Amino acid sequence: MKSLVLESQRDLSLRDIDPGEALGPGDLRIAIRSVGICGSDVHYYTHGRIGPFVVNEPMILGHEASGVVTEVGPDVQGFAVGDRVCMEPGVPDLSSRATLLGLYNVDPSVTFLATPPIHGCLRPEVIHPAAFTFALPDTVSFDQGALVEPLAVGLQACVKARITPGDVAVVLGAGPIGIMTALSALASGCGRVFITDLTAEKLDVATGYPGITAIDISREDPAVVLAEATGGWGADVVFEASGSSKAYDGIAGLARPGGCVVLVGMPVDPVPFDVVSAAAKELRIETVFRYANVFDRAIELLASGKIDLDPLISERFDFDRSVEAFERAAEGRASDVKLMIRVSE
Amino acid sequence: MKSLVLESQRDLSLRDIDPGEALGPGDLRIAIRSVGICGSDVHYYTHGRIGPFVVNEPMILGHEASGVVTEVGPDVQGFAVGDRVCMEPGVPDLSSRATLLGLYNVDPSVTFLATPPIHGCLRPEVIHPAAFTFALPDTVSFDQGALVEPLAVGLQACVKARITPGDVAVVLGAGPIGIMTALSALASGCGRVFITDLTAEKLDVATGYPGITAIDISREDPAVVLAEATGGWGADVVFEASGSSKAYDGIAGLARPGGCVVLVGMPVDPVPFDVVSAAAKELRIETVFRYANVFDRAIELLASGKIDLDPLISERFDFDRSVEAFERAAEGRASDVKLMIRVSE
Amino acid sequence: MKSLVLESQRDLSLRDIDPGEALGPGDLRIAIRSVGICGSDVHYYTHGRIGPFVVNEPMILGHEASGVVTEVGPDVQGFAVGDRVCMEPGVPDLSSRATLLGLYNVDPSVTFLATPPIHGCLRPEVIHPAAFTFALPDTVSFDQGALVEPLAVGLQACVKARITPGDVAVVLGAGPIGIMTALSALASGCGRVFITDLTAEKLDVATGYPGITAIDISREDPAVVLAEATGGWGADVVFEASGSSKAYDGIAGLARPGGCVVLVGMPVDPVPFDVVSAAAKELRIETVFRYANVFDRAIELLASGKIDLDPLISERFDFDRSVEAFERAAEGRASDVKLMIRVSE
Amino acid sequence: MKSLVLESQRDLSLRDIDPGEALGPGDLRIAIRSVGICGSDVHYYTHGRIGPFVVNEPMILGHEASGVVTEVGPDVQGFAVGDRVCMEPGVPDLSSRATLLGLYNVDPSVTFLATPPIHGCLRPEVIHPAAFTFALPDTVSFDQGALVEPLAVGLQACVKARITPGDVAVVLGAGPIGIMTALSALASGCGRVFITDLTAEKLDVATGYPGITAIDISREDPAVVLAEATGGWGADVVFEASGSSKAYDGIAGLARPGGCVVLVGMPVDPVPFDVVSAAAKELRIETVFRYANVFDRAIELLASGKIDLDPLISERFDFDRSVEAFERAAEGRASDVKLMIRVSE
Repeated sequence: MKSLVLESQRDLSLRDIDPGEALGPGDLRIAIRSVGICGSDVHYYTHGRIGPFVVNEPMILGHEASGVVTEVGPDVQGFAVGDRVCMEPGVPDLSSRATLLGLYNVDPSVTFLATPPIHGCLRPEVIHPAAFTFALPDTVSFDQGALVEPLAVGLQACVKARITPGDVAVVLGAGPIGIMTALSALASGCGRVFITDLTAEKLDVATGYPGITAIDISREDPAVVLAEATGGWGADVVFEASGSSKAYDGIAGLARPGGCVVLVGMPVDPVPFDVVSAAAKELRIETVFRYANVFDRAIELLASGKIDLDPLISERFDFDRSVEAFERAAEGRASDVKLMIRVSE
Repeated sequence: MKSLVLESQRDLSLRDIDPGEALGPGDLRIAIRSVGICGSDVHYYTHGRIGPFVVNEPMILGHEASGVVTEVGPDVQGFAVGDRVCMEPGVPDLSSRATLLGLYNVDPSVTFLATPPIHGCLRPEVIHPAAFTFALPDTVSFDQGALVEPLAVGLQACVKARITPGDVAVVLGAGPIGIMTALSALASGCGRVFITDLTAEKLDVATGYPGITAIDISREDPAVVLAEATGGWGADVVFEASGSSKAYDGIAGLARPGGCVVLVGMPVDPVPFDVVSAAAKELRIETVFRYANVFDRAIELLASGKIDLDPLISERFDFDRSVEAFERAAEGRASDVKLMIRVSE
Repeated sequence: MKSLVLESQRDLSLRDIDPGEALGPGDLRIAIRSVGICGSDVHYYTHGRIGPFVVNEPMILGHEASGVVTEVGPDVQGFAVGDRVCMEPGVPDLSSRATLLGLYNVDPSVTFLATPPIHGCLRPEVIHPAAFTFALPDTVSFDQGALVEPLAVGLQACVKARITPGDVAVVLGAGPIGIMTALSALASGCGRVFITDLTAEKLDVATGYPGITAIDISREDPAVVLAEATGGWGADVVFEASGSSKAYDGIAGLARPGGCVVLVGMPVDPVPFDVVSAAAKELRIETVFRYANVFDRAIELLASGKIDLDPLISERFDFDRSVEAFERAAEGRASDVKLMIRVSE
Repeated sequence: MKSLVLESQRDLSLRDIDPGEALGPGDLRIAIRSVGICGSDVHYYTHGRIGPFVVNEPMILGHEASGVVTEVGPDVQGFAVGDRVCMEPGVPDLSSRATLLGLYNVDPSVTFLATPPIHGCLRPEVIHPAAFTFALPDTVSFDQGALVEPLAVGLQACVKARITPGDVAVVLGAGPIGIMTALSALASGCGRVFITDLTAEKLDVATGYPGITAIDISREDPAVVLAEATGGWGADVVFEASGSSKAYDGIAGLARPGGCVVLVGMPVDPVPFDVVSAAAKELRIETVFRYANVFDRAIELLASGKIDLDPLISERFDFDRSVEAFERAAEGRASDVKLMIRVSE
């Protein structure tokens, strides 16, 4: 049984590898069906590292995944063989201080699929704790199940924003996470969501959804557009999802007095932040680190039809074409939102 | 120019009356278009009072209203003659402690349209403070504009609930406010909303909306239905919108551990409340008194199409048939959700 | 090594018993020093049960305890033999939905010391998970360490209240939990705290602390006292700590518009609750079930000197006098706040 | 009757001037007693401007003030001639959107004493709206009453932080606002508060209060001190009160996972902000703009004795020495915290 192994920077192979896992009493064995390619997977492929996380040993990629339960640990309740599931890739120390506070995503000892030295799930099967595995309703496909993971980032951003129904939001950056955030914001109660980008193809995907309005920052000033749209008041919530340092220039000007800015993107270097302009509106600024306690919520919103991620799947690849899929992802085509690998059907 | 005057209990007349108003510097003069009939209007008609509020003098009824601006006070900014608007009927003391805290709805000195001794708006025109008047976008009809007021009650309940995206909610009681609350809950991020009632006609109206599931309590136990629907976990939010003392029996059993119960209905007498069962789940219980700061949000959600109130308008009456409309409302037909009076077109 | 065993209702003995425990990898072995007697311990003694929890087998009593670590499980970090500690008696399923949400106290599968069938800690040593054990600074005595548990209830009530600095609070009922709540409220930022009771001895203990004002409800109307003290505005927070049904009569009248009522006491039967008077002020009502994530905070406040529990210890008993201590506790003397058993020194 | 007039940059005179005020129906006339000198007063004196606010016309300085009511407007309730009071200097448009939300401090049309073109209160009497005037209990002196204003800034920071009882906080910068913030944090429920500075004299003032621990950053690394003090966990709340760009270097390292950073200081230029390190702990960042709804709370905490500001008054000046007081303030002596002018006794 072959896995997609990142041997080292720019060296991928589909080959046999023993991930060295054993089913614990609280674990599930899961046959993988669909795996989405995330920007971080691509970054490991192209750079061999993300910040302090370095691929020193061959590592299986992939952490956006769905599958079918094939074996159930003896202590597990609520799962049976044959259940369709998706997996939350971060697993904390259950007895840590952060976890007991409900903040398991910021537990310093959390491990995460496809983050060195933990193997990912582009392979026929994985073993995963049942507590971080979620059943998929029949109405949620395996492909959508695989996308629960990136959707959870957008949803975490909305939970942090504490959206009040009827809020007006603006999302800076129309990449996959930006669009997932915009969809989450609409599903979370926003009345209108604006999204900015320089790239027309990305904006076109976003505005294919009703309720989302594009702001092409090569031609329009978001501050002007938002002021007009809100009678000079500003957006209730600003989601920074570009990760670009430039996005911080004038960011407070987009928000209303007492509004919120949620930092979803991760700029590599420190950004210049104008405290006075944020303070003059007494803005609240929230940061996001992955997600906690939102996978079930993301599935609920997919099952209800409030969010539909199918339009974001730009192309599907069979597992034996997965190296090709990564090469395509590394191209960074403007029209590609999400590439999906079908490990098995 | 005639107004619909409640002379005394069970005595309505459409006649001339001088409401004795003058345009203040911060006021608007508004020609009324649509007025919805609220249960409280009907209760004043049938009982001549609501609790401590007694109709001692002839009083114009109606507080769910929309219209067109015909005159603008000299200090008003942001409104012009011809603007389509709706009015928030409660007007507080702007310099009170409660108002400065953002809690103007619980300012003890608040006045409210069609609550003795304040006249309502079933009349050709009213004078109202601009600060409590809201512009209607072109896409929101005058009828929907009139229904912003009851929708605001449902939305206030959802703001109090602090809905997290993907929540499962149950609304007890499928009267107009119950349905408005269910629609607000869906628009505020709930994935699924259940609604209970004894009356099939009411449940049929509610389940005409996607995302709402009926629980007919003459045949089903809501606790059982919710347990099945949530894997034994319970609803994230329980909205009590029946005002019935019976609804409190077992209410904590519907909620999940750490969930919320929002009391929207107003039972006349004290209800028996089981503290231990609520405490065992550490439930939060919120109460609702009208609304504050949600009219603009309700309009935003109507304009976005996230909420459509047209299916709730059971029949429209011309102004000269308004006494007939009240008689019909007083019948309390099971299939009537909202009766609308067209004061002018 | 003898333990204090409740053989059955009204039958206590100090005898050998094997609690049948083994040190797990994440556990600590703790030599017990001080144990406070809680009302629930006394209730098991006098009634043999509390609601659904029935003493069917001999059970060791006591859950307010401190001690010294004598053995450390192999996976435990941060503890060493000789550490002075206290124990949080409720232990949840670490992988449950409630626990991952940070709500481990309402995990349906939580176990709790001295709640059937779990043995308590009136014995020479216990084995307890390190994750629910807390180091005591040198400045916190073993007796105060034993009282972290009831203090945590008061602190949980204050966390739920979300006290804003300068709040005025009123606590209904000056029993041990009422006083702990009042002390917690002062330490949590309240400027003034009022406490009510019928019993002068209890009020005298409470008002021995600066910042606490007694309201003797045999002579004074709390609503009148609070209205005078707050210029007619009302208390920001009302803590119901009497567990008496009578306390609910007029409870909303004590609170300010937009205020909070925290239900700490546990009335046996449903109480009559006036929804309209609570809703007219749009009160938030919080319930409390034990505590979560506050033991470290309680210790911090004891160590800082912001809370001093020594005045609440009415009498100390050596372990061989522990049956006598329970008989004294069962008398319910008005002047007794907390009786303390010294298991070892 | 003379006032302290800033004629232009570096030109102060004590002279007659007509502030051109008339008592409105909701106003009070107040004879000024004590006025504290704020850094912003000094900045107007030394620079003639603060950012966009330029002293183009002679302006009376001073906005930290207390006094005695000498005349009461006809619509005012709750005040009488002779009442001892202090004044909240920011007055918003009462009917604005921000004000109705309870966010009147960020109402774009707010006016503020001693901010051009509004006169301050270093003069014998002022006229001020009763809604922004607060009675002082007998136990709060006029000097302490004048200091309610800067204390309110610290308290607003604590309200924004949403302090949980037992929190550990660190305040960066031991200037007047830093110390006021530290005192507010202790009064708001913190168990321990650390404060950093380069200047020993400032730290000495701060550590004169029990519960405050100094970190002299010329000799110690705050990250190391806090890690040791919290077992490697970090501070629950970090208050940035230095306004220095350098304070942002490593600021996330001081906080615990899920902690809060409150930006109280106002750096002139954008600061370099490391999003990744804040996001890795999912920190919440709050900003502060003056205060709203906290004057009454500050007075409550002064009256209760939980906060004592007397030790912060470095020297008192009679009104006829007020130019000298400003010259002294402009020197910026390390040991001066607050200089107080006695307009009358």
